[in-house]
Amino acid sequence: MDKSLKIAVAGLGTVGAGTLELLQTHAGDLERRCGGPIEIVAVSARDRGKDRGVSIDGYEFFDDAVAMARDAGAEVIVELIGGADGIARQVVETALGSGRHVVTANKALIASHGAKLAKSAERAGVVLSYEAAVAGGIPIVKTLREGLAGNAVSRVYGILNGTCNYILSRMRDEGLEFSMVLADAQKLGYAEADPGVDIDGHDAAHKLAILAALAFGREVDLPSVHVEGIGHISLQDIRFAEELGFRIKLLGIASETDAGVEQRVHPCMVPQSSPIARVEGVFNAVVAEGDFVDTLILEGRGAGAGPTASAVVGDLVDLARGVRIPAFGVPVDLLKPARPIAVSGHCGAYYIRLMVVDRPGVFADVAAVLRDNKVSMESILQHGRAPGEAVPVILTLHETVEAQAVKTIDAIAALDGVLERPVMIRIENL
Amino acid sequence: MDKSLKIAVAGLGTVGAGTLELLQTHAGDLERRCGGPIEIVAVSARDRGKDRGVSIDGYEFFDDAVAMARDAGAEVIVELIGGADGIARQVVETALGSGRHVVTANKALIASHGAKLAKSAERAGVVLSYEAAVAGGIPIVKTLREGLAGNAVSRVYGILNGTCNYILSRMRDEGLEFSMVLADAQKLGYAEADPGVDIDGHDAAHKLAILAALAFGREVDLPSVHVEGIGHISLQDIRFAEELGFRIKLLGIASETDAGVEQRVHPCMVPQSSPIARVEGVFNAVVAEGDFVDTLILEGRGAGAGPTASAVVGDLVDLARGVRIPAFGVPVDLLKPARPIAVSGHCGAYYIRLMVVDRPGVFADVAAVLRDNKVSMESILQHGRAPGEAVPVILTLHETVEAQAVKTIDAIAALDGVLERPVMIRIENL
Repeated sequence: MDKSLKIAVAGLGTVGAGTLELLQTHAGDLERRCGGPIEIVAVSARDRGKDRGVSIDGYEFFDDAVAMARDAGAEVIVELIGGADGIARQVVETALGSGRHVVTANKALIASHGAKLAKSAERAGVVLSYEAAVAGGIPIVKTLREGLAGNAVSRVYGILNGTCNYILSRMRDEGLEFSMVLADAQKLGYAEADPGVDIDGHDAAHKLAILAALAFGREVDLPSVHVEGIGHISLQDIRFAEELGFRIKLLGIASETDAGVEQRVHPCMVPQSSPIARVEGVFNAVVAEGDFVDTLILEGRGAGAGPTASAVVGDLVDLARGVRIPAFGVPVDLLKPARPIAVSGHCGAYYIRLMVVDRPGVFADVAAVLRDNKVSMESILQHGRAPGEAVPVILTLHETVEAQAVKTIDAIAALDGVLERPVMIRIENL
Repeated sequence: MDKSLKIAVAGLGTVGAGTLELLQTHAGDLERRCGGPIEIVAVSARDRGKDRGVSIDGYEFFDDAVAMARDAGAEVIVELIGGADGIARQVVETALGSGRHVVTANKALIASHGAKLAKSAERAGVVLSYEAAVAGGIPIVKTLREGLAGNAVSRVYGILNGTCNYILSRMRDEGLEFSMVLADAQKLGYAEADPGVDIDGHDAAHKLAILAALAFGREVDLPSVHVEGIGHISLQDIRFAEELGFRIKLLGIASETDAGVEQRVHPCMVPQSSPIARVEGVFNAVVAEGDFVDTLILEGRGAGAGPTASAVVGDLVDLARGVRIPAFGVPVDLLKPARPIAVSGHCGAYYIRLMVVDRPGVFADVAAVLRDNKVSMESILQHGRAPGEAVPVILTLHETVEAQAVKTIDAIAALDGVLERPVMIRIENL
């Protein structure tokens, strides 16, 4: 198998430049590992002349990435443009349609059109790889699809967005409010100028939908992911969490039971002793629970040029070594259909923060609502007194069906002495 | 590729029975994932009639595993007998010699004869896989060989023996001495009746030698691994470690620098904040440091029927899917030769516990030895006083070349007021 693998790279942003740098730096080692060189024949970007800290001399340059996907003399198109639709999708569809393998880091694309694209790849007899789309440098796609192929995986969850984890870690460590940390994270480059898709949870939702498809052998089902972001998390919730023995993390959690598949992305309180609680800063972590392997935890950098390039090149090395595995581990026609359960049926514990007027009788009203809704309380917490003023009161609820918890919170919110919409954060015993 | 993969299983102990159970339980899912069934055609064990909790009806039975490796109508021989030589080696050599793939969980075999066996596999055009040989259910072989193939890995280390980690965890948690925890661990089945190879560090050494070969693309070099066990770790060292902000773990550490490759297995003091410090009980963890991926941590169960079977079947699924990758990631002839550095050249920090007579002048003598050996001290610690009696004194040394540290300890040991051979534990800033 002493032959070269000819590739073309579409998109030369941070990840694209990192991928070129890796391929140039380790050309010799890669040739030994692949049985032949990985040869870059063409690249495409919006701006040919931009200084990327890496040379593109010697590669054919295309202004039009779709034309490159169709016309370049490459067996593999590496798509690093991003976005669920638009150019990125055209590039990938064109590549697959013309019988070229695709390696992509595009989570939105795979989460939105994964099954359709995998089907196109199958028809053309080529590979669609996307290790870099989930959790950056952590080889979780390979682990679920290959390493754990002997298991029935019942749950996969993790910290899938480094920006959110960085913000929550700094809020706790430094006692700062969300908006202050966000502004600083943007200055430092840990958050985008438009951080929406990160902090509203949708970036994590893309990754979770892909993980769930791989773990459960089902079609990707992005629309069914219940998504909440971290924008409403306040410093006082973080402090109460600490006091209760928890830490607040934005998690993506997918689990399959006889009832169906639950996919949720939202801030969670997890016990401080949980391995996932101790993953701090920009790090990501993914936990997979299989019936034979038990619990497996992978932790590493979930973004950035180097880690993402590592994942992209891992896929290229597989291709060069002749590895041909279906995108989701089984042919698309053998994927089971999505079988979503609504979050309203979720059964869990809850943290609820009320702002109440500190006066006699308010507790009795709250207790009556709990009783009337048949919801049992695990603990109640109030610090200090401020007669006649607003004070936070923390309730934690035992395992309750979410619809019932929400109904109860609505009733509490309507009480006379309760001043604003209560904050609800799910407690996960991970 | 709608065909079956015919396998024969040699060895029906805990792992063998677990592997049969997995293959039987998940036959349908495996067929979907592999594009055809994994078909067990033969098994071999010492005692045919033994109750293993799993049926072997319908499989051809061989009393002689070597005969099975030669004669069974199988494309793959799964070797789960164990041991560097003897029957296990004969089975594997016979299988490879007759053009059959081999999947093994045998760390001693791969650590001792890996390159030679990989060469035989190459000659025969078959695969030699051994995911289950290192860290049980953690897919670290696949991760190093495939997922991180784009990286130059400079260091790989981890908790590679669950028995030792269990013992050290319980000593700390419950304030018990080594011998008491060991006896209890044996009763509970967490330690073998003959725990030698676990607690003396040699089990971890086998795994480390394999990890180093994969990480650095070099021939396996078991004889160069510096090995110390945990038998000399006392409860007081564990308590002093806590006080100094450390935790004691038996680690395997392999690193490559311009000077060569260092491979060490020994108890270490690691900062309590280090991810590896928080891996408790029977869990294993492996950390790989690559130039692009940065730090990647994998944590999971390192032993037991289920996790080990998960790893064995992961290898079988790869085979069924047509994956053909050289045993150590590159053809044997492209592996670089071993390039060991002796531990005497290791540069690190040290914890030293002296038992000294509590009388004036002893400290001055110790200080003079340090000065004469040009070794600088980081801290000194003594609790309470017991004039005229033996008290422990803890020294921690700054970064020092090991040969110099040992020479210094020898000189301290020879002092008049020092009562027994000082205990030395390396401090690792992981």
